[in-house]
Amino acid sequence: MENQRVPIELDPKLALGLLGHVEFGRVAFVANGLPTIRPLNHVMVSGQIIVHTRHTTAFAQTVRGHAGLRVAYQADEIEKDSRLGWSVLVSGIAGDITDKRRDEKLGPQVRSWMARPLDTIIAIKPLEVTGLRLTIAR
Amino acid sequence: MENQRVPIELDPKLALGLLGHVEFGRVAFVANGLPTIRPLNHVMVSGQIIVHTRHTTAFAQTVRGHAGLRVAYQADEIEKDSRLGWSVLVSGIAGDITDKRRDEKLGPQVRSWMARPLDTIIAIKPLEVTGLRLTIAR
Repeated sequence: MENQRVPIELDPKLALGLLGHVEFGRVAFVANGLPTIRPLNHVMVSGQIIVHTRHTTAFAQTVRGHAGLRVAYQADEIEKDSRLGWSVLVSGIAGDITDKRRDEKLGPQVRSWMARPLDTIIAIKPLEVTGLRLTIAR
Repeated sequence: MENQRVPIELDPKLALGLLGHVEFGRVAFVANGLPTIRPLNHVMVSGQIIVHTRHTTAFAQTVRGHAGLRVAYQADEIEKDSRLGWSVLVSGIAGDITDKRRDEKLGPQVRSWMARPLDTIIAIKPLEVTGLRLTIAR
Protein backbone atom coordinates (compact mmCIF):
# COMPACT_ATOMS: atom_id res chain seq x y z
CA MET A 1 0.00 0.00 0.00
CA GLU A 2 2.95 2.24 0.69
CA ASN A 3 3.04 4.05 -2.62
CA GLN A 4 -0.58 3.79 -3.64
CA ARG A 5 -1.80 6.90 -1.91
CA VAL A 6 -2.94 9.57 -4.30
CA PRO A 7 -3.85 13.17 -3.53
CA ILE A 8 -7.25 14.36 -4.75
CA GLU A 9 -7.65 18.11 -4.92
CA LEU A 10 -10.59 19.40 -2.92
CA ASP A 11 -13.02 22.13 -3.82
CA PRO A 12 -12.02 25.27 -1.82
CA LYS A 13 -15.42 25.55 -0.09
CA LEU A 14 -15.30 21.92 0.96
CA ALA A 15 -11.70 22.35 2.12
CA LEU A 16 -12.61 25.38 4.25
CA GLY A 17 -15.48 23.41 5.73
CA LEU A 18 -13.10 20.65 6.81
CA LEU A 19 -11.31 23.13 9.09
CA GLY A 20 -14.48 23.12 11.20
CA HIS A 21 -13.96 19.38 11.83
CA VAL A 22 -10.74 19.83 13.77
CA GLU A 23 -9.75 21.89 16.76
CA PHE A 24 -6.24 22.93 15.92
CA GLY A 25 -3.87 23.91 13.17
CA ARG A 26 -0.68 25.88 12.62
CA VAL A 27 -0.23 29.45 11.54
CA ALA A 28 2.84 30.62 9.60
CA PHE A 29 3.86 34.25 9.46
CA VAL A 30 6.99 36.33 9.12
CA ALA A 31 8.34 37.78 12.38
CA ASN A 32 11.58 39.77 12.44
CA GLY A 33 12.21 38.68 8.87
CA LEU A 34 12.01 34.96 9.65
CA PRO A 35 9.31 32.42 8.80
CA THR A 36 7.65 31.31 12.02
CA ILE A 37 5.11 28.57 12.81
CA ARG A 38 2.86 28.36 15.85
CA PRO A 39 0.32 25.65 16.68
CA LEU A 40 -3.06 27.11 17.66
CA ASN A 41 -6.63 26.10 18.44
CA HIS A 42 -9.29 27.52 16.19
CA VAL A 43 -12.98 27.71 15.49
CA MET A 44 -14.63 28.68 12.22
CA VAL A 45 -17.03 31.64 12.39
CA SER A 46 -18.69 32.95 9.20
CA GLY A 47 -15.96 31.50 7.02
CA GLN A 48 -13.13 33.01 9.04
CA ILE A 49 -10.59 31.17 11.17
CA ILE A 50 -10.83 32.51 14.72
CA VAL A 51 -7.96 31.83 17.10
CA HIS A 52 -7.55 32.81 20.73
CA THR A 53 -4.08 33.53 22.00
CA ARG A 54 -2.28 35.67 24.53
CA HIS A 55 -1.37 39.33 24.13
CA THR A 56 2.33 38.55 24.61
CA THR A 57 2.76 35.78 22.02
CA ALA A 58 4.90 36.34 18.94
CA PHE A 59 1.80 35.85 16.78
CA ALA A 60 -0.33 38.41 18.63
CA GLN A 61 2.51 40.93 18.67
CA THR A 62 3.18 40.50 14.95
CA VAL A 63 -0.51 40.84 14.06
CA ARG A 64 -0.83 44.02 16.10
CA GLY A 65 2.33 45.45 14.55
CA HIS A 66 1.33 44.85 10.92
CA ALA A 67 -2.07 45.84 9.54
CA GLY A 68 -3.20 43.30 6.95
CA LEU A 69 -0.55 40.76 8.00
CA ARG A 70 -0.34 37.91 5.50
CA VAL A 71 -0.39 34.48 7.09
CA ALA A 72 -0.77 30.85 6.08
CA TYR A 73 -2.86 28.40 8.10
CA GLN A 74 -2.68 24.63 7.84
CA ALA A 75 -4.69 21.85 9.42
CA ASP A 76 -5.04 18.18 8.70
CA GLU A 77 -6.66 15.01 9.88
CA ILE A 78 -4.45 12.09 8.98
CA GLU A 79 -5.17 8.60 10.25
CA LYS A 80 -1.93 7.48 11.86
CA ASP A 81 -1.66 3.93 10.48
CA SER A 82 -3.15 4.25 7.00
CA ARG A 83 -2.01 7.87 6.67
CA LEU A 84 -5.18 8.58 4.77
CA GLY A 85 -7.11 11.76 5.42
CA TRP A 86 -6.97 15.38 4.37
CA SER A 87 -4.81 18.48 4.62
CA VAL A 88 -6.01 22.04 4.05
CA LEU A 89 -3.89 25.13 3.41
CA VAL A 90 -5.21 28.67 3.71
CA SER A 91 -3.49 31.87 2.66
CA GLY A 92 -5.07 34.89 4.26
CA ILE A 93 -4.95 38.10 6.25
CA ALA A 94 -4.86 38.21 10.05
CA GLY A 95 -6.31 40.93 12.24
CA ASP A 96 -6.84 41.44 15.97
CA ILE A 97 -10.59 41.43 16.65
CA THR A 98 -10.40 41.28 20.45
CA ASP A 99 -12.27 44.54 21.00
CA LYS A 100 -14.82 43.82 18.29
CA ARG A 101 -15.65 40.36 19.61
CA ARG A 102 -16.03 41.61 23.17
CA ASP A 103 -19.02 43.64 22.03
CA GLU A 104 -20.63 40.84 20.06
CA LYS A 105 -22.62 37.87 21.14
CA LEU A 106 -19.90 35.30 21.32
CA GLY A 107 -20.13 32.47 18.86
CA PRO A 108 -18.37 29.12 19.15
CA GLN A 109 -15.53 29.30 21.62
CA VAL A 110 -12.00 28.15 21.13
CA ARG A 111 -11.04 25.52 23.68
CA SER A 112 -7.85 26.45 25.43
CA TRP A 113 -5.11 23.88 25.73
CA MET A 114 -3.44 25.70 28.52
CA ALA A 115 -4.05 26.78 32.09
CA ARG A 116 -3.45 30.34 30.94
CA PRO A 117 -5.83 33.12 30.09
CA LEU A 118 -6.30 33.67 26.34
CA ASP A 119 -6.92 37.39 26.12
CA THR A 120 -6.47 38.05 22.40
CA ILE A 121 -8.76 37.04 19.54
CA ILE A 122 -7.39 37.00 16.01
CA ALA A 123 -9.40 36.43 12.84
CA ILE A 124 -7.80 35.04 9.70
CA LYS A 125 -9.74 35.96 6.57
CA PRO A 126 -9.06 33.35 3.86
CA LEU A 127 -7.98 34.69 0.47
CA GLU A 128 -6.98 31.36 -1.05
CA VAL A 129 -7.86 27.85 0.10
CA THR A 130 -6.47 24.59 -1.20
CA GLY A 131 -7.05 21.12 0.11
CA LEU A 132 -6.03 17.56 -0.61
CA ARG A 133 -7.68 14.34 0.30
CA LEU A 134 -5.24 11.45 0.55
CA THR A 135 -6.87 8.35 -0.75
CA ILE A 136 -5.95 4.95 -2.18
CA ALA A 137 -5.19 4.62 -5.89
CA ARG A 138 -7.56 2.32 -7.77
CA MET B 1 -9.75 19.12 32.94
CA GLU B 2 -10.28 21.66 30.20
CA ASN B 3 -8.06 24.37 31.56
CA GLN B 4 -5.60 22.32 33.56
CA ARG B 5 -3.15 21.65 30.77
CA VAL B 6 0.19 23.33 31.30
CA PRO B 7 3.08 23.63 28.88
CA ILE B 8 6.47 22.43 30.11
CA GLU B 9 9.44 23.70 28.14
CA LEU B 10 11.64 20.93 26.77
CA ASP B 11 15.40 20.83 26.54
CA PRO B 12 16.36 21.57 22.88
CA LYS B 13 18.22 18.26 22.45
CA LEU B 14 15.29 16.30 23.81
CA ALA B 15 12.92 18.30 21.60
CA LEU B 16 14.97 17.57 18.48
CA GLY B 17 15.01 13.89 19.43
CA LEU B 18 11.21 13.85 19.55
CA LEU B 19 11.10 14.69 15.83
CA GLY B 20 12.50 11.22 15.23
CA HIS B 21 9.36 9.74 16.83
CA VAL B 22 7.00 11.03 14.14
CA GLU B 23 6.90 10.74 10.38
CA PHE B 24 5.62 14.10 9.34
CA GLY B 25 5.61 17.79 10.09
CA ARG B 26 5.10 21.12 8.36
CA VAL B 27 7.63 23.47 6.91
CA ALA B 28 7.07 27.23 6.71
CA PHE B 29 8.99 29.44 4.33
CA VAL B 30 8.53 32.65 2.40
CA ALA B 31 7.69 32.20 -1.30
CA ASN B 32 6.97 35.20 -3.51
CA GLY B 33 6.88 37.36 -0.41
CA LEU B 34 4.16 35.31 1.31
CA PRO B 35 4.39 32.94 4.27
CA THR B 36 3.70 29.42 3.05
CA ILE B 37 3.18 26.11 4.87
CA ARG B 38 3.57 22.64 3.42
CA PRO B 39 3.05 19.30 5.19
CA LEU B 40 5.97 16.92 4.61
CA ASN B 41 7.31 13.55 5.70
CA HIS B 42 10.73 13.57 7.33
CA VAL B 43 13.46 11.47 8.86
CA MET B 44 16.18 12.65 11.20
CA VAL B 45 19.76 12.02 10.03
CA SER B 46 22.71 13.27 12.11
CA GLY B 47 20.59 15.93 13.78
CA GLN B 48 19.22 17.29 10.51
CA ILE B 49 15.64 17.10 9.28
CA ILE B 50 15.66 15.32 5.92
CA VAL B 51 12.61 15.64 3.68
CA HIS B 52 11.93 14.14 0.27
CA THR B 53 9.82 16.09 -2.15
CA ARG B 54 9.38 16.69 -5.86
CA HIS B 55 11.49 18.98 -8.01
CA THR B 56 8.41 20.98 -9.01
CA THR B 57 6.98 21.74 -5.57
CA ALA B 58 6.91 25.30 -4.26
CA PHE B 59 9.22 24.23 -1.43
CA ALA B 60 11.84 22.62 -3.70
CA GLN B 61 11.75 25.58 -6.09
CA THR B 62 12.14 28.10 -3.27
CA VAL B 63 15.03 26.17 -1.69
CA ARG B 64 16.86 25.97 -5.03
CA GLY B 65 16.30 29.67 -5.68
CA HIS B 66 17.62 30.91 -2.33
CA ALA B 67 20.92 29.73 -0.87
CA GLY B 68 20.64 29.51 2.92
CA LEU B 69 16.84 29.76 2.85
CA ARG B 70 15.46 30.28 6.35
CA VAL B 71 12.61 27.97 7.25
CA ALA B 72 10.61 26.90 10.27
CA TYR B 73 9.64 23.27 10.86
CA GLN B 74 6.96 22.10 13.26
CA ALA B 75 5.83 18.65 14.35
CA ASP B 76 3.69 17.42 17.19
CA GLU B 77 2.15 14.35 18.70
CA ILE B 78 -1.06 15.29 20.43
CA GLU B 79 -3.42 12.68 21.78
CA LYS B 80 -6.78 13.56 20.28
CA ASP B 81 -9.02 13.19 23.33
CA SER B 82 -6.80 14.35 26.18
CA ARG B 83 -4.90 16.74 23.89
CA LEU B 84 -1.78 15.93 25.86
CA GLY B 85 1.51 15.42 24.07
CA TRP B 86 4.27 17.56 22.65
CA SER B 87 4.99 20.13 19.97
CA VAL B 88 8.44 21.02 18.63
CA LEU B 89 9.43 24.09 16.61
CA VAL B 90 12.68 24.35 14.69
CA SER B 91 14.11 27.43 13.03
CA GLY B 92 16.79 26.54 10.51
CA ILE B 93 18.35 26.67 7.08
CA ALA B 94 17.21 24.51 4.16
CA GLY B 95 19.40 23.23 1.35
CA ASP B 96 18.97 20.83 -1.57
CA ILE B 97 21.18 17.79 -0.94
CA THR B 98 19.78 15.60 -3.72
CA ASP B 99 23.11 15.22 -5.51
CA LYS B 100 25.08 14.76 -2.31
CA ARG B 101 22.78 12.06 -1.00
CA ARG B 102 22.77 10.17 -4.27
CA ASP B 103 26.47 9.49 -3.74
CA GLU B 104 26.14 8.42 -0.14
CA LYS B 105 24.98 5.24 1.42
CA LEU B 106 21.39 6.12 2.07
CA GLY B 107 20.35 6.27 5.67
CA PRO B 108 16.78 6.06 6.93
CA GLN B 109 14.31 6.64 4.13
CA VAL B 110 11.38 8.96 4.10
CA ARG B 111 8.15 7.09 3.48
CA SER B 112 6.22 8.67 0.66
CA TRP B 113 2.54 9.39 1.14
CA MET B 114 1.93 9.59 -2.52
CA ALA B 115 1.99 7.48 -5.64
CA ARG B 116 4.45 9.97 -7.10
CA PRO B 117 8.19 9.89 -7.38
CA LEU B 118 10.02 12.00 -4.80
CA ASP B 119 13.11 13.14 -6.66
CA THR B 120 14.40 15.93 -4.42
CA ILE B 121 16.03 15.64 -1.00
CA ILE B 122 16.19 18.70 1.23
CA ALA B 123 18.07 18.97 4.52
CA ILE B 124 17.00 21.43 7.21
CA LYS B 125 19.83 22.30 9.57
CA PRO B 126 18.40 23.39 12.93
CA LEU B 127 19.65 26.68 14.33
CA GLU B 128 17.14 27.00 17.14
CA VAL B 129 14.89 24.35 18.65
CA THR B 130 12.10 24.84 21.16
CA GLY B 131 9.65 22.30 22.43
CA LEU B 132 6.72 22.07 24.78
CA ARG B 133 5.23 19.12 26.52
CA LEU B 134 1.54 19.56 27.30
CA THR B 135 0.81 17.97 30.62
CA ILE B 136 -1.76 18.16 33.41
CA ALA B 137 -1.37 20.80 36.10
CA ARG B 138 -0.91 19.40 39.62
